[in-house]
Amino acid sequence: MEGGASCMGEAAERVKNARVRRRVMSAEAAAEMVAPDAVLAVSGFARAGGPKEVPLALARQAREGRPLRLAVWSGGSLGGEIDRELAGTGAVVRRLPYQSLPDLRQRINRGEVEYVDQHLGVCPELVRAGHLGRPDVALVEACVVREDGSLVPTSSVGNSALYVEVAAAVIVEVNLWHPVELEGLHDIWGYGRPPERGPLPLVDPLQRIGRPAIPVDPDRIAAVVLTCRPDHPYEFDPPDEASLRIGEHLLDFLEGEVRAGRMPPALLPVQAGVGNLGNAVLGALARWPHPGLTFFSEVLQDGVLDLIDAGVARGASGTALTLSTAGQERFRRDLGRYKPHLILRPQEVSNSGEAIRRLGVLAVNTAVEVDIYGHVNSSHLFGSQILNGIGGSGDFSRNAYLSVFVTSSTARGGRVSCVVPMVSHVDHTEHEVHVVVTEQGVADLRGLSPRERAAAIISRCAHPTYRPLLEDYFRRACREGGHSPHLLGEALSWHIRYLERGTMLP
Amino acid sequence: MEGGASCMGEAAERVKNARVRRRVMSAEAAAEMVAPDAVLAVSGFARAGGPKEVPLALARQAREGRPLRLAVWSGGSLGGEIDRELAGTGAVVRRLPYQSLPDLRQRINRGEVEYVDQHLGVCPELVRAGHLGRPDVALVEACVVREDGSLVPTSSVGNSALYVEVAAAVIVEVNLWHPVELEGLHDIWGYGRPPERGPLPLVDPLQRIGRPAIPVDPDRIAAVVLTCRPDHPYEFDPPDEASLRIGEHLLDFLEGEVRAGRMPPALLPVQAGVGNLGNAVLGALARWPHPGLTFFSEVLQDGVLDLIDAGVARGASGTALTLSTAGQERFRRDLGRYKPHLILRPQEVSNSGEAIRRLGVLAVNTAVEVDIYGHVNSSHLFGSQILNGIGGSGDFSRNAYLSVFVTSSTARGGRVSCVVPMVSHVDHTEHEVHVVVTEQGVADLRGLSPRERAAAIISRCAHPTYRPLLEDYFRRACREGGHSPHLLGEALSWHIRYLERGTMLP
Repeated sequence: MEGGASCMGEAAERVKNARVRRRVMSAEAAAEMVAPDAVLAVSGFARAGGPKEVPLALARQAREGRPLRLAVWSGGSLGGEIDRELAGTGAVVRRLPYQSLPDLRQRINRGEVEYVDQHLGVCPELVRAGHLGRPDVALVEACVVREDGSLVPTSSVGNSALYVEVAAAVIVEVNLWHPVELEGLHDIWGYGRPPERGPLPLVDPLQRIGRPAIPVDPDRIAAVVLTCRPDHPYEFDPPDEASLRIGEHLLDFLEGEVRAGRMPPALLPVQAGVGNLGNAVLGALARWPHPGLTFFSEVLQDGVLDLIDAGVARGASGTALTLSTAGQERFRRDLGRYKPHLILRPQEVSNSGEAIRRLGVLAVNTAVEVDIYGHVNSSHLFGSQILNGIGGSGDFSRNAYLSVFVTSSTARGGRVSCVVPMVSHVDHTEHEVHVVVTEQGVADLRGLSPRERAAAIISRCAHPTYRPLLEDYFRRACREGGHSPHLLGEALSWHIRYLERGTMLP
Repeated sequence: MEGGASCMGEAAERVKNARVRRRVMSAEAAAEMVAPDAVLAVSGFARAGGPKEVPLALARQAREGRPLRLAVWSGGSLGGEIDRELAGTGAVVRRLPYQSLPDLRQRINRGEVEYVDQHLGVCPELVRAGHLGRPDVALVEACVVREDGSLVPTSSVGNSALYVEVAAAVIVEVNLWHPVELEGLHDIWGYGRPPERGPLPLVDPLQRIGRPAIPVDPDRIAAVVLTCRPDHPYEFDPPDEASLRIGEHLLDFLEGEVRAGRMPPALLPVQAGVGNLGNAVLGALARWPHPGLTFFSEVLQDGVLDLIDAGVARGASGTALTLSTAGQERFRRDLGRYKPHLILRPQEVSNSGEAIRRLGVLAVNTAVEVDIYGHVNSSHLFGSQILNGIGGSGDFSRNAYLSVFVTSSTARGGRVSCVVPMVSHVDHTEHEVHVVVTEQGVADLRGLSPRERAAAIISRCAHPTYRPLLEDYFRRACREGGHSPHLLGEALSWHIRYLERGTMLP
């Protein structure tokens, strides 16, 4: 075992079932139990809680000539152990449902890895239905193996419970970096199979409806590997000027919603997307004047800990706790303080359309680009190149009480307008986009027709440099007529211009 | 009152609340209660159960010079009384969430009517949240006004219960064409407002969870108008050769799903889209060898009655019963026989993502065009022109257990390919499209990456005339790279060619 020999002494305390304890072995030995063409279903979401030692051992074996052609299914994006080290050997030939590291992305865009991008809340349904086949091995990280064999997850839940349920065999990585006091943070609940299943009983974002650990027959655990590696951290840039202004515009808009009686003072449960802009949104919410905020989100980031510390947030529900290096240390150190405010759930609950709709979530997601009619691209650059994937943005935006998309009005030093005549890839249609916020302002699109939406988006969200160009396009398109007037010969010309000349400006 | 003086004698029997009965008046008088710039929220879905006399009176008033600028909100598409006669006067300046008649469509495409196309299952949520403002008048058709003032709907439920709840005033059209025995067909249930609301308690497609009538305080009913007009009928063409083959391919595919254990022999609850192709799908299902089918759909058409008669279907749940003239007569004549097998619900239940997901619906919807990566256009022609709208297709496809899209491989005598490099408008992304069926064959896209999806769609679904052209596009796009390889300069060129030269063929 690399990276954590110092904490080996705790093994007996962490693997409490005696039969399972006898299956503690080296990562190399466990890796050899994975068939060369296996479907490997792993824990991990937003780089948190994924397995570490077995993937690194598989990567070593691949580099030493073992002919691996693995399909890797996860909860969400994974850390460097799989999406950089293992994928870097060429051993990962199929990957779902999300990724976010550059090396793997480049392989996908070169056509070397078959990447099956999926709604993170829907993926578990596809797995359960058998639409994707059956995983051979569930490889999941746990904090503790309990007496009955059940597994206490670590910093994410993701699809772990489901993968453990449906896979032919189970391999567990027990991660000693996490304190045993993590037990009680998680709430494990799963949908059954249709048609015999009832409602998700969740009626409050901070309600517990399940068990603290993932049930598993101890005899199905084929191997246990110990590790002390922390998660791949998620470091943030400090918010730039545009992000700060987007946060201010959002706060102003939400205050208006409260005044209009459409939102309670403590807001409805909030979901905020991952990344610098998502973190800037959390930073803005720290100034929200009415305490008692709750989060019903997928990824909980450093900003959520700040909001709890500041007494602004009552608590947060998610499927992953994705922190910076400093955040990881802070959470581990003050676990007792944070734990009563946090719940980690399977992604089929955190991203459940049923729950998001019922609770009335205020969803704030980041757009790559938005078009004049309010269609949003979240996943592709210039039509072809995948960035990360759709992630949970569709689960939330489709089912939200209020769906907000945020983006800077320009990118790449102003050479790209993030408001374009027609997006080069559609992830979210106009129907899922209630409000668009850029550093320029807020376009409130509720109840507007496409032509009215265009007028609002262009005048309020586009950068002044690009605004006259958009106005000109829209005016000429309207002359040709239609409900969503477009000039098909020009609709994608801004993207083409950028590809050819390095700028969208004419 | 036009169109039904013969049944006027029944009025006392149909309006059982005495206070409400005193408000029976002429359509002209009721129409004058509608302010010239009112938001008029009406019953009606898929041309069934909409109000008739007051809209026609408003149309007469408009033609005589009353300056009407109405916003008309409905459940779904409306019959000719509103979407042709009233809209034809120019009195409808805003319309949501769906329409399907040519005159109104042309006005929308000319930019004369602000049309707000919406997911039919999400629209009620937007109304309840106040995102669209408040309707001034709810104008709903009923079969009976009960003693307590509650309203028994007619051939659809749509948004009637919600509109009656939130509107400032209520006008009822009592339609004597329908027999009073319709009472008991409907199941009225509504979501509350978040965050204080529980699950939709539905666990079986044929379960009743609500009341048989729409509750309303009798004092809120400002007027009652009598009518005997039947619904605007929906006539079908007999299935053509392509539709029959699509039906056969679908049946073969579903038999494979049953054999693979992914679908029970009586299938999961079925949703089939409206129209000739939807009706052809129902015709194919009449040959399904395992009895006990159920439908959890939005619109129930003549084919559902056939399946009940044939003993193939156990029952059907929807929000509208949209029938041909012959079907209307047949249903009225044999109401006692059909009623135990049918339930009409509010569209927030029939199209509830929560219910569709939980029940595991098999959704079969019609595409206008599909692209090589499996994105579907359901609503627009050549990017700009609206056809009808997204309707309920997004509610079902996003939440379905299995989402199938059907289309002929070509249209307009072969001059249009319905499989294109890039759709000119996206309503459903690749994530919502599990299976595509054309008369050429079946592309099973589950678990495939975009490049794999393209290979399947081109080889199995495209017409042989267009297949080499698609292969050529895809091959050249792959040389440029990307996760979903496109050549942006050519992606929409097929549509441009059609607009310029009347054919997509080069």
